[in-house]
Amino acid sequence: MRVDVVHNVLKLNDALAQQIRSGLRAQGIFVPNLISSPGSGKTTLLERTLAHFQGEWGQAVIVGDLATSRDAERLAPFAQSVQINTDGGCHLDAAMVANALPHLDLTGVDVLYIENVGNLVCPVGYDLGHDAKVALISVTEGEDKVAKYPRLWREADVVLLTKADLLPYVPFSRDGFYEDLRALNETVPVLEVSSSTGQGMDAWFDWLRVRRAQETTKPAS
Amino acid sequence: MRVDVVHNVLKLNDALAQQIRSGLRAQGIFVPNLISSPGSGKTTLLERTLAHFQGEWGQAVIVGDLATSRDAERLAPFAQSVQINTDGGCHLDAAMVANALPHLDLTGVDVLYIENVGNLVCPVGYDLGHDAKVALISVTEGEDKVAKYPRLWREADVVLLTKADLLPYVPFSRDGFYEDLRALNETVPVLEVSSSTGQGMDAWFDWLRVRRAQETTKPAS
Repeated sequence: MRVDVVHNVLKLNDALAQQIRSGLRAQGIFVPNLISSPGSGKTTLLERTLAHFQGEWGQAVIVGDLATSRDAERLAPFAQSVQINTDGGCHLDAAMVANALPHLDLTGVDVLYIENVGNLVCPVGYDLGHDAKVALISVTEGEDKVAKYPRLWREADVVLLTKADLLPYVPFSRDGFYEDLRALNETVPVLEVSSSTGQGMDAWFDWLRVRRAQETTKPAS
Repeated sequence: MRVDVVHNVLKLNDALAQQIRSGLRAQGIFVPNLISSPGSGKTTLLERTLAHFQGEWGQAVIVGDLATSRDAERLAPFAQSVQINTDGGCHLDAAMVANALPHLDLTGVDVLYIENVGNLVCPVGYDLGHDAKVALISVTEGEDKVAKYPRLWREADVVLLTKADLLPYVPFSRDGFYEDLRALNETVPVLEVSSSTGQGMDAWFDWLRVRRAQETTKPAS
């Protein structure tokens, strides 16, 4: 019985997510969904990304957290930002995104970033109507998080290895990281980045540009 | 209906957890449950802890991960270790612990450590039959994880601020950390530790000694 309930919830979620995606695609809006552990650097990456594309793109952000509006407040200087508080829920779902959308003026928006709740497990199974899953892992977490939390890396459209500037100070095996990642996903692009030093950020911006161009030329349904 | 199901699941879990706790307490076994984000340093802390108490205590470990037996393999040189693979589940539950216990020889064991799945949300609500919740947060995650994931810090019996040796290299506000933590939990002890340098580890070992003495003199039911 428990399985049936969860199954129905997921089916309803996916139907709503599909509606969201169709609607946003019809408006030419590209939607990346950022997923990682707490503290991997999603919000800082978004600060740098929003600043970089100011003037080039219209941008907006939906941010999920269990509590507080701190992330949306950090991002508000750069772009329209809506904070979703899940009140204990460990991931965003399509209904939360649908409820957040009317709080944004999407006129002229080219990219709508979704920053999921910090969690390597729960967010992976929920379609939010996004176009791409952006998976982050920081060098301070350790390379073993790839093999131990496999689903995210299997489904990721791009993997960002963040806080790369801290590599000299932490026991992170880059070889082990690539070995485990390639065993799960042979083709996903991996970008080593640092929001602090700017290392690798141009490759991330290029990835966004190329992927956005691909997605927004797809048919709307 | 969905709420009812979850409610029943939690009630069943808690009843089983109470049985586990009673059984282990009758054997004089103290059970800390370690909870944190992925990569906060639970396994490394356990390596140091098991090594420190070798000869003083009989020790055993139950480790939860979505996949792999890497953590149990890391801990096996120090103590009996059982790995639970949750196959996608974001936390341990009492049934998993009950199934793991027969794989351990508890004769002469004084402390049974449980290392939960790396997750700041899901594990918090599940009683595993433990005596204490040990909450870890690493300085590399950022101090805002306290306010953004409030429940764990409210319910923690001790908070370990890990990777304290990396403080010079990361933008972590110690003042902000204590301010947010004290707003949620006025009394929980906080220990700043580094498994790499050994900083603060004696305070952690002392905490374990004192808490174990308190718990194992409580009545068994």
